Amino acid sequence: MIAFEDLPAGRIIPLGEVIVDRDDMVDFAKKFDPQPFHLDEEAGRNSIFGGLSASGWYTASLWMRRWVDVVLSDSTSQGSPGGRELSWLAPVYAGDTLTFAAEVLSARLSKSRPTLGLVEFAGTAHRGDELVYKFVATGMFTARG
Amino acid sequence: MIAFEDLPAGRIIPLGEVIVDRDDMVDFAKKFDPQPFHLDEEAGRNSIFGGLSASGWYTASLWMRRWVDVVLSDSTSQGSPGGRELSWLAPVYAGDTLTFAAEVLSARLSKSRPTLGLVEFAGTAHRGDELVYKFVATGMFTARG
Repeated sequence: MIAFEDLPAGRIIPLGEVIVDRDDMVDFAKKFDPQPFHLDEEAGRNSIFGGLSASGWYTASLWMRRWVDVVLSDSTSQGSPGGRELSWLAPVYAGDTLTFAAEVLSARLSKSRPTLGLVEFAGTAHRGDELVYKFVATGMFTARG
Repeated sequence: MIAFEDLPAGRIIPLGEVIVDRDDMVDFAKKFDPQPFHLDEEAGRNSIFGGLSASGWYTASLWMRRWVDVVLSDSTSQGSPGGRELSWLAPVYAGDTLTFAAEVLSARLSKSRPTLGLVEFAGTAHRGDELVYKFVATGMFTARG
């Protein structure tokens, strides 16, 4: 089980690859972000994105799923109060292969609850060498010791 | 159509209410955030959240849908590069009534593209008087003039 002690500053955690599925991407947009360039090929081509593109919240949700599967599902996680950076750096298109990762930026024990660790990490999604999404957030993990 | 000029600093935009649907909330968690306290009543009760609670990304996505319906769908929106704050301040439960809003924090024209306006806003979700979610982001809107 992954505990606070396993997440020191500098640790890089590969979260695997996902191929962006067109239908799933559009279904998400219909439900939560029905802007034309997220729904329709032609509207996408005529937009600043140059093609049918994913809702940024879909990309964030895809990243989250990998973070849960690789880290949180077998961990001492106590949730997250949020993040301080959420960057959609390039449009994401159907069929893109995204490579997800997380890097621990800092890790410290809470002053008020010394069994609780606060882990600040950067979550990233790359398409090839290009960073398309970045999220800096805090995760809370109980310490083992 | 809502353009840059319609979004001056200080403008508050009510985005309406949503009652959090249990099945929809759990379906989202199954797909994107399958942590036990987002899936199962008992696991929720035994967690720090004290009950079956929504994925923070679900709350964010519900907010986005209202932002699209009330503002972006009939606007000069050119997308968003991201945000600088994402705060999940209290757990959200099935059946909660969330009241969504946005407040424009600052608005200025881009130096490099003077027809493009950069609007920084705070998106919020309240349950009664309690702020449960806050998101500070930048939206890009073409200017009318």
